Amino acid sequence: MTYQVDIRVMPLKDLLDPQGKAVLGGLASLSLSSVTDVRIGKHISLTVEAGSAEEARSIAEEASKRLLANPVMESFEVTVTG
Amino acid sequence: MTYQVDIRVMPLKDLLDPQGKAVLGGLASLSLSSVTDVRIGKHISLTVEAGSAEEARSIAEEASKRLLANPVMESFEVTVTG
Repeated sequence: MTYQVDIRVMPLKDLLDPQGKAVLGGLASLSLSSVTDVRIGKHISLTVEAGSAEEARSIAEEASKRLLANPVMESFEVTVTG
Repeated sequence: MTYQVDIRVMPLKDLLDPQGKAVLGGLASLSLSSVTDVRIGKHISLTVEAGSAEEARSIAEEASKRLLANPVMESFEVTVTG
């Protein structure tokens, strides 16, 4: 069966996010100063062939650990959407 | 009040996603060939000061249209998480 899996990879909370800070500055100069913080990460959508949702999740977690996320700087979250 | 708003910016379905294709190749060479498609976009978390969830959403939509997403190549989806 085919599963759609979403992975959100975000910079760890304790780390600076220079891209987010740059966007925050850009929003302020567009008069959108009610935005007080910005953090930017990746959103990855995988299409996975697997026997079950659990198997699809474990494939996505392995992919995240081995290729998609850098555990030193990023955390990831896997959601199987079916 | 402070709202947390998540924005998902993805390349439009009809467009090639070269970054996704590169990752798909990488996964195949890690023997993760049950992944048949990969698309990569951005995940942006905003902290917004607003009077209501509706106002927070409209600020995030304006930010997406004016700065965060390029409508020629990307679509975006806003979720207010409270």
